[in-house]
Amino acid sequence: MKPIEIGVVMGSGSDWDTMQHAVQILEQFGIAHEARVLSAHRMPDDMFAYAEAAADRGLRAIIAGAGGAAHLPGMLAAKTTVAVLGVPVASRHLQGLDSLHSIVQMPRGIPVATFAIGSAGAANAALFAVALLAAERPELRQRLQAFRTEQTEAARSATLPPTA
Amino acid sequence: MKPIEIGVVMGSGSDWDTMQHAVQILEQFGIAHEARVLSAHRMPDDMFAYAEAAADRGLRAIIAGAGGAAHLPGMLAAKTTVAVLGVPVASRHLQGLDSLHSIVQMPRGIPVATFAIGSAGAANAALFAVALLAAERPELRQRLQAFRTEQTEAARSATLPPTA
Amino acid sequence: MKPIEIGVVMGSGSDWDTMQHAVQILEQFGIAHEARVLSAHRMPDDMFAYAEAAADRGLRAIIAGAGGAAHLPGMLAAKTTVAVLGVPVASRHLQGLDSLHSIVQMPRGIPVATFAIGSAGAANAALFAVALLAAERPELRQRLQAFRTEQTEAARSATLPPTA
Amino acid sequence: MKPIEIGVVMGSGSDWDTMQHAVQILEQFGIAHEARVLSAHRMPDDMFAYAEAAADRGLRAIIAGAGGAAHLPGMLAAKTTVAVLGVPVASRHLQGLDSLHSIVQMPRGIPVATFAIGSAGAANAALFAVALLAAERPELRQRLQAFRTEQTEAARSATLPPTA
Amino acid sequence: MKPIEIGVVMGSGSDWDTMQHAVQILEQFGIAHEARVLSAHRMPDDMFAYAEAAADRGLRAIIAGAGGAAHLPGMLAAKTTVAVLGVPVASRHLQGLDSLHSIVQMPRGIPVATFAIGSAGAANAALFAVALLAAERPELRQRLQAFRTEQTEAARSATLPPTA
Amino acid sequence: MKPIEIGVVMGSGSDWDTMQHAVQILEQFGIAHEARVLSAHRMPDDMFAYAEAAADRGLRAIIAGAGGAAHLPGMLAAKTTVAVLGVPVASRHLQGLDSLHSIVQMPRGIPVATFAIGSAGAANAALFAVALLAAERPELRQRLQAFRTEQTEAARSATLPPTA
Amino acid sequence: MKPIEIGVVMGSGSDWDTMQHAVQILEQFGIAHEARVLSAHRMPDDMFAYAEAAADRGLRAIIAGAGGAAHLPGMLAAKTTVAVLGVPVASRHLQGLDSLHSIVQMPRGIPVATFAIGSAGAANAALFAVALLAAERPELRQRLQAFRTEQTEAARSATLPPTA
Amino acid sequence: MKPIEIGVVMGSGSDWDTMQHAVQILEQFGIAHEARVLSAHRMPDDMFAYAEAAADRGLRAIIAGAGGAAHLPGMLAAKTTVAVLGVPVASRHLQGLDSLHSIVQMPRGIPVATFAIGSAGAANAALFAVALLAAERPELRQRLQAFRTEQTEAARSATLPPTA
Repeated sequence: MKPIEIGVVMGSGSDWDTMQHAVQILEQFGIAHEARVLSAHRMPDDMFAYAEAAADRGLRAIIAGAGGAAHLPGMLAAKTTVAVLGVPVASRHLQGLDSLHSIVQMPRGIPVATFAIGSAGAANAALFAVALLAAERPELRQRLQAFRTEQTEAARSATLPPTA
Repeated sequence: MKPIEIGVVMGSGSDWDTMQHAVQILEQFGIAHEARVLSAHRMPDDMFAYAEAAADRGLRAIIAGAGGAAHLPGMLAAKTTVAVLGVPVASRHLQGLDSLHSIVQMPRGIPVATFAIGSAGAANAALFAVALLAAERPELRQRLQAFRTEQTEAARSATLPPTA
Repeated sequence: MKPIEIGVVMGSGSDWDTMQHAVQILEQFGIAHEARVLSAHRMPDDMFAYAEAAADRGLRAIIAGAGGAAHLPGMLAAKTTVAVLGVPVASRHLQGLDSLHSIVQMPRGIPVATFAIGSAGAANAALFAVALLAAERPELRQRLQAFRTEQTEAARSATLPPTA
Repeated sequence: MKPIEIGVVMGSGSDWDTMQHAVQILEQFGIAHEARVLSAHRMPDDMFAYAEAAADRGLRAIIAGAGGAAHLPGMLAAKTTVAVLGVPVASRHLQGLDSLHSIVQMPRGIPVATFAIGSAGAANAALFAVALLAAERPELRQRLQAFRTEQTEAARSATLPPTA
Repeated sequence: MKPIEIGVVMGSGSDWDTMQHAVQILEQFGIAHEARVLSAHRMPDDMFAYAEAAADRGLRAIIAGAGGAAHLPGMLAAKTTVAVLGVPVASRHLQGLDSLHSIVQMPRGIPVATFAIGSAGAANAALFAVALLAAERPELRQRLQAFRTEQTEAARSATLPPTA
Repeated sequence: MKPIEIGVVMGSGSDWDTMQHAVQILEQFGIAHEARVLSAHRMPDDMFAYAEAAADRGLRAIIAGAGGAAHLPGMLAAKTTVAVLGVPVASRHLQGLDSLHSIVQMPRGIPVATFAIGSAGAANAALFAVALLAAERPELRQRLQAFRTEQTEAARSATLPPTA
Repeated sequence: MKPIEIGVVMGSGSDWDTMQHAVQILEQFGIAHEARVLSAHRMPDDMFAYAEAAADRGLRAIIAGAGGAAHLPGMLAAKTTVAVLGVPVASRHLQGLDSLHSIVQMPRGIPVATFAIGSAGAANAALFAVALLAAERPELRQRLQAFRTEQTEAARSATLPPTA
Repeated sequence: MKPIEIGVVMGSGSDWDTMQHAVQILEQFGIAHEARVLSAHRMPDDMFAYAEAAADRGLRAIIAGAGGAAHLPGMLAAKTTVAVLGVPVASRHLQGLDSLHSIVQMPRGIPVATFAIGSAGAANAALFAVALLAAERPELRQRLQAFRTEQTEAARSATLPPTA
C-alpha cells in the first residue's frame, strides 16, 4: 500500500456531498489519499494533532472543506507548513459567501490556497494537489496533461440542442 | 489584587484601536481584567492553552476581537465552555463584513456571542460581560443601572446645532 | 415547579421552525424556560412590559429571534440589563442578511449577543444560556461538559459513504 | 406660532450632519417643525411617549433618521399610525447598508416609508412630507410645483467644464 | 362610484403575485383604487401620461411595484408631486436587492417612499396609503386603529406547537 | 446561405438554457448566426482563434455568455475589436453576482458591453445586436421598431387576475 | 462641422469627473459628439425628447452615465432603438453597486449595454462606440487597431520599481 | 545565476503596491524569481506565451495579481499545469470583491489557488510558493519553519499601549 499523500478533511459529514468531488479526482489519478471528518470546532485537539503529524506522515497537501464560520483550513495551516487547500462549502443561508470569507481572508503569514465554493472548488483543489505532485513525477504530469487534453476535446465536441 | 475575571484578547496589536473600547468599559466598572495579543494563526498553541486554562483561572468571559478570517473567538469557544464574546474588527478591504461572517456563523454546538463591527461592538461586549457579572452582584447591578440611566440622560440632553 | 430562568421569544409564529432548536436544547438540559410570540412591531407594549419585568421575574437571559427588520432583540436590550441573546431568523428574500444586520449592529451602550442565522444560531444561543447558568452550578457545568464530550465523540465517529 | 406638523428625530447627535438636510427643506417651505435627538435604544420610553403623543399633537409625519441597527423608525411606526418616514444614516463600517436593511425590511402590518441612504434621503423625506401637506393646501402645492420647476431649470442650465 | 384615490401599478403581469397584497388591503379598507400593468420600459409614454394626469384625477398616492432595474416608481415621481410609494418586487437572480437599490436610492429632489421587498412591502405600502387618507377622515382613522388593535390581538393569541 | 453576422458562444453546454434566449431573438429577426460552446478555460486556443478570425469572417458582434469566473467575454474582447456583448449566466451558489462582476468590471481599454444576469440579459444582448445591424438596414430597423411596438401593445393589453 | 454621432449625457454635473473619460476618448478619435447634463428625474421631458430625436438626428449611440437609482440609461433605451451604453457612476455610500444594479438589470425587451463602474467604464463605453462606427469605416478601424497596439506596447514596456 | 522558479506577474503597474509584498517574501527566502507586468487584456498573446513556456522554463509556480475583472490568473491556469496562485488586488470601487469573485470562482477543471485580497494575499501566495519548494528541500523547510517560529515569537512579545 502506498503511503498517503493527500488528506481530504471536512468539518462535518454533511460536507461529503461537496468534498467527494475531490476524492473522485484523487481516485481517478491514483493518488493515495484518506478522507475523514475533522471538525475544527467539535474536534479541536484531533485537528491540531492531524496538522502536527501531517509533515511527518508525508502528506503533501491537505484539502480542507468547511462551511459557515469555516475555521478548519486556516487552523490547520496555523499548525503545519504542509500546503493547505481550502474549499468553501455552500452554507444554508448565505450560500457559501460566509465560508469563502472565512477561508480566503487569512492574515499575512499563514497561507491557505482557496478554491471555488462547492463541488467545482473541491474538484479543483484535488486537481491542484495532483499538479503539485506532478511537478516531480513525469508519469503523473503526462496523465494530468492527458486529462486536460480530454477535457478540451470534450468541451470541443459539445453540441447544443435546438432552441425550445 | 482581585483575580482576573474577564480576558480581552485580540489577533494582533493593530486591533488595539478597536479593542481598547472594551478595556475602557471594564476599567470604568472596576472589573479585574487582562488584555493581550493572542493570535489564532500565529500563536495557535498559546491560544489553546489560554482557552483550556480559562475556567480554572476563574475567567467568567473572554472578549475576543479579530479581523478578516477571524478564527480567534470560534477556536477559543471550541476549547472552553467559558463564555466567548466575539468582536469583528473592521478589515482593510471588506470593512469587517468578512470578520463578521467568520465570527457569527458558528456551527451548531459551539456558541460565540457576537457584537457589532468595530469599537461599538468592543464596548458592548464589555458591557455584556459586566451584565453577566452583575447578575450575582447587587452592587455591580446598581452601577450598571446607573450607567444606563446616565446614558439616557446624556442622550436626552443632546442639543442640535443650527442648520448649516 | 422551578422558576423560569430563560425566556425564548420570537417575532411571529413562523419563527418557531427556527426557534424550537433553542427550546430543544433548554429541555435537554432541564432548564426552566418559557417560549412565546412577542412581536416588537405588533405588540410593542407587551414587549416593553416583558423586558421591564425580566429582572424581577428572575430571568437570567432572553433568547430573542426575529427576521427582516429584526428589532425585537435590540429593543428588549434597551429596556433591561438582563442578557439578551439575538437569533437572526432567515428572511424570505435576503436569507437573513437583513435580520443579521438589524440585530448585530447595535450602537455603543446597548449590547445584544448575536448568534448565527437560523437554527444553528438558535441552538447556540441556548447553549450559551446554559453556559451562563453553568458558571454557578457545578452539576450543570458537568452536564455541559458531557454534552461537549459527546458531541466530540459523535463527530469523531462519523463515517463517510463511498464516492458516488 | 403655528402648531408643529412635522417631527424630525434622530438616534444621536452625530446624525445631524445627515438630518439637517431634512430640516433645511422644511425651513425652505415654511413648515412648522421640531428637531431632536430621540434614541430608540438609549431613550426607549421617551421614544414611545413621542410616538403615542404624535397624533394628538397634530403631527402629520415623523421623519426619523438612524444608523446601524436602526430601530427608531420602525418602533415609532409600531406605536402610531402617523406617517413615519425613515432615513438610513450611513454607518461607519457598512456604509448604511445595515441601516437600510433595518429600516426598510419591516414586517407586514407596520409600514415605514424609507428613503435613500444619507443626506439625499433626508432631503427627500422632507420633500415627501411637504407633498403630503400640499395635498390639502393649494398654496403649498404651488410652492412645491415651483420648487420642482426651478430644480428642472437648474439642471437644464448646468454647464460642463472642458475635459481635463 | 367613488372616484379613484389610489393607483396600484406594476411593471409586468408577473408582479401581480406580489402587488395583489396591496390591493387586498385597499379592498379591506374600502378605498377606491385601480390596478394595472404600467411598464416604465415597454410603455414609457403611457407611464408619463399616467403620472401627469394623477393629480388632476384626484389620486392621493400611487403604489408602484417593479423588479430588477425597477425604474417605474422613480420615473412616476419625476413626473408628479402625488406621493409615490415604491415596492421592490423580488427578482429572479438577485432576490430583489437590485429592485431595492433601483427604487430607494433616488437622488435629492425626487422622493420615492420605499417599502420592503415583496408582499410585505406591498401590503405595507397600501397600509401607508390608508394612513395618509386617514389623516383627514376620522372614520377611516378609527378603522385603521381597529386594524392595528386586531393585529396586536392576533399576535398576542398566537400559540406555539410543541417542539418537533 | 447568408454569411454569419452574429456569433453566440458560451462557456459550457449548461449555459444553453440561458443563451438560447439570444438565439431565439436572432432567429425571430432572421439574422444569420451561429451558436457554439467555446470555453475560455477548457478551450483557450480555440477561443483566441475564434476572436482573431471574427473580423475577417464578417462577424458584427459576438454574444458571449458565461458563469462564475466568467472570463470568456473579456478575453474575446482582448483579441478583437468586434463588439463583444457579455451575458452573465446565473451561477449555482452566488446567483450570477460573480459572473456579473467578472464580466462588467473590465479595465480601461478593453470594452465588454454587459447585459442582465440570465435569460433577460441573453435576449437583450441579441436585441442590441439587432439594433447595431439595423443602423444600416432600413428594413431591419422597421422590424425592430415593429417588435417594440408589439411589445408595448402586449404590455398595454395585460390584464390582472382577481385578488386571491 | 460634422454631424454629431455620439451623445454623452449624464444625470448631474457631478458626474463629469467620471464621464469626461468618455469624452476624451471620443476627442482622441475625432468622433463628432456632444456632452450635456440630462437628468432622468429632474428633466424627464427633456430626456424623452432627447431619446425621441436621437435616431433622426443621426446619433449612432448614446453614452449615458448616472449614479444611485440610475434610471437615465434605461429610460433612454425605452424611448429609442439607438444603442444606449450605460455607465454606472460611483455613488457616495454604496460605491456604485446601486448604480450598477439599476443600469444592468434591465428587463427582457429593452437592452442597455453596461460598462464598468466609474471612469474605466466611461472610457470603455466610448471605445465601444468607436468600434461600432469603425465597423463601417476602414480608416477608423485602423486607428482603433493602432490604439490597441499602442496600448499593448505601453503595457509591455511597463517597468516595476524596486521593492520598498 | 539560479534559474527562475517563481514568476510574479500582475495586470498593471499600479498592482505593484500590492504585489511587491510577494516579491519581498521571495527575496527574504532567496528564491529565484522574476516580476513583470503581464496584462490579460492588453497583452493576451504575451500572457499565453508566458503560460505556455512556464513548465519548460522550470517555473514551479506563477503568482498572478489582478483587480476588477481579474482574468489573468484563470487564463494562465487555462494554458499551463504549473501551479497558479491568484491574488485579488483591491479595486477602486468594489474594494476587491469583484477581483476575488473573478479569481476564485473558477469552473471545475482549471484550478487557481486564491489568496486574500491585497498585500496580505500577495505575501501569503509567496509563502505558499516557498512551502511548495520546501517540500523537497530540507534547508528551505528549516528556514520556513524558522520564519514561522519568529512570527510566533513576534506575536507573543507584542505589547499593548495604555488605553487612550
